[in-house]
Amino acid sequence: VGVIGAGQLGQMMVPAAIGLGLELHFLSEDPSDPAAQWSPHHVLGSALSREAIAQLAAQTDVVTCEHELLDLTLLAELGDLSEGSTAVYPSATTLASVIDKTAMRAAVDAAGIPGPSWRVVQTSSDLDAVVAEWPDVVAKAARGGYDGRGLAFVRNGLITPEVRAWSEQIMTGPHPSVLLLEPLLDLEAELAVLVIRGIAGEVVVYDPVRTVQVDGQCRAVIVPHGLGAKVDAEARQIALAIAEQIDAVGVLAVEMFVVGGEVYVNELAARPHNSGHHTIDACVTSQFENHLRAVAGLPLGSSAATGPAAVMVNLIARDAESDPRARRDLGLGVDPRVRIHLYGKEPRPQRKVGHMTVVAADVEEASAVAWHAVRAMGCDDRELEVNRQVNG
Amino acid sequence: VGVIGAGQLGQMMVPAAIGLGLELHFLSEDPSDPAAQWSPHHVLGSALSREAIAQLAAQTDVVTCEHELLDLTLLAELGDLSEGSTAVYPSATTLASVIDKTAMRAAVDAAGIPGPSWRVVQTSSDLDAVVAEWPDVVAKAARGGYDGRGLAFVRNGLITPEVRAWSEQIMTGPHPSVLLLEPLLDLEAELAVLVIRGIAGEVVVYDPVRTVQVDGQCRAVIVPHGLGAKVDAEARQIALAIAEQIDAVGVLAVEMFVVGGEVYVNELAARPHNSGHHTIDACVTSQFENHLRAVAGLPLGSSAATGPAAVMVNLIARDAESDPRARRDLGLGVDPRVRIHLYGKEPRPQRKVGHMTVVAADVEEASAVAWHAVRAMGCDDRELEVNRQVNG
Repeated sequence: VGVIGAGQLGQMMVPAAIGLGLELHFLSEDPSDPAAQWSPHHVLGSALSREAIAQLAAQTDVVTCEHELLDLTLLAELGDLSEGSTAVYPSATTLASVIDKTAMRAAVDAAGIPGPSWRVVQTSSDLDAVVAEWPDVVAKAARGGYDGRGLAFVRNGLITPEVRAWSEQIMTGPHPSVLLLEPLLDLEAELAVLVIRGIAGEVVVYDPVRTVQVDGQCRAVIVPHGLGAKVDAEARQIALAIAEQIDAVGVLAVEMFVVGGEVYVNELAARPHNSGHHTIDACVTSQFENHLRAVAGLPLGSSAATGPAAVMVNLIARDAESDPRARRDLGLGVDPRVRIHLYGKEPRPQRKVGHMTVVAADVEEASAVAWHAVRAMGCDDRELEVNRQVNG
Repeated sequence: VGVIGAGQLGQMMVPAAIGLGLELHFLSEDPSDPAAQWSPHHVLGSALSREAIAQLAAQTDVVTCEHELLDLTLLAELGDLSEGSTAVYPSATTLASVIDKTAMRAAVDAAGIPGPSWRVVQTSSDLDAVVAEWPDVVAKAARGGYDGRGLAFVRNGLITPEVRAWSEQIMTGPHPSVLLLEPLLDLEAELAVLVIRGIAGEVVVYDPVRTVQVDGQCRAVIVPHGLGAKVDAEARQIALAIAEQIDAVGVLAVEMFVVGGEVYVNELAARPHNSGHHTIDACVTSQFENHLRAVAGLPLGSSAATGPAAVMVNLIARDAESDPRARRDLGLGVDPRVRIHLYGKEPRPQRKVGHMTVVAADVEEASAVAWHAVRAMGCDDRELEVNRQVNG
């Protein structure tokens, strides 16, 4: 299996590949990338380079990706050109519906899933017109954007100079993109559902999880989500409908908002996703193994939980000096149930350098242990903010 | 962490090392060994070579092993010579008590653990004398021996020509060893207990498992063992006492016999062991991760089971043509709970090329699913023999 990218998501595919006896070939520009350190098969090059992608394809039976900075035209050609000798999963068509936020909104509408209103704008005057109608709005770059870097907020109809400059840059910069505008919603909670879909359309769904963002960054994943059976059923149904609609293969992560008891789609990702990191330690089959199984055409594994409750907390570095690798003994020492996953990344302020999962009898216990361990490791501690969001 | 050996046991340390952010350096003579394929740090050389061991030690903070073909003098010197800059765990002293079966028996006696009688012989006439006293006896090479290749049976006082030749070869061959003789016992069951012991003496015990051998090869591991609370408590107590007695660090696997309701020690191994492979999929922390944590001086992880029952079955190749790697889809397709671990080894008759674990509501269900999957993969199927042993 060829993997475009060699970050932590690729790294976490390695244990699954070992067990299944699959060879992984990673493509990245930096041989010191997390996953590249654990596989002898590494193609050095850009994910946007025709030569590099062709080399990866020549070495493998199937190509998949672990990030979204892709040239979809190239991937579409690859599938066609190799005449089926190297498959690409998810397909360029699927990826197009996921990576471009306007295409995503169109796909969600096409699947018949109710959602918030949305508008697309290409110019500053169009932006002004929408803000005149919707004074509280979130603006998203249709392409690009990750952990809060691709969006901006307008409140009370006031476009600040910063937001104006940001929007101009998105719409007219070197890689221009339209803006997707959505009215700001009064969120009760955020959810995520991971679907694994096989080549023949077979599906496995993980239990929906509650996700908690602070400062635009995912901080914690909590399961069970505690938002009731109606929300749960709706979330699963939406995720399955979208996976079918866009013909996903592998992981499809559907991030959702709960607003007034209704579930709305927020974002999609067609790769292993932060909201599924707990599956390594808290489910029979991890999202990473199931992604590999799906793209390699193997039967899918059980998504069942192995314990009553799990909390995953991202390990986010405070600064370049506080390296959690130097304090892993302190984290592990907090409780024998602490499961630490480090990504082999140099710490930088606000950089995700790992995650931690605790399975326990209930969410409160798992959460308390996890945050205790996060503090012991000297990582950014947002327990209060996370608990405030969860408990209202 | 430096690891002497790069077989499947080393390979299964890799996922644990990735999560903990530990570098693994493997020493082996063959760069195509299972573990060597998954780590960029590989020292090419013999486990018995001073140069190779010194090179491994120079690259690492601690050296451990995943097999027992070791030069203990070399390891003892290494610990001393490096003046503590590279530690060796388990120590050469611990390994001596484990690898040499007479030293092992002496250590078990010294720990005050009741066991079967045993004798040591060095010549054919000594062997005759013991057989005259004990007509039914098992003879073991004190050093060497794995999966049945290091032992022979005498029944009704009759030493067959094959056993005579074998014993001569052990006692007077190029690497002479004494023979350890033990009266043949009427086994009710075989058990194994895995203890993890840290550098400071802290311990974690996994639930005792029932092991089933067919033709001298471990075929299945079953947990819970179903042999009652008295046997369970005795088995744990014995394993802990031995770990303390020999100052184990890392995994200590204690293989035991149940005879007349009593528990006797059979063999020891001071490394991750086949009887603990289920811990990858059926326990909070795998034996591989806990071994690395122990030798690296990290706090130990929980050994708790994640499900009510687990069955591990070794994948043993029928012949060179029936490669389970080509049939992994058939095995996985049997049930979404099937967990397959392949070792990347070429199939040869009776060669262990992987294992499989199923966690289920009870042993019967887990066992049925596992054996069904073993057959689907075309591996050696000993379900009948295993069930006959378990059910009497």
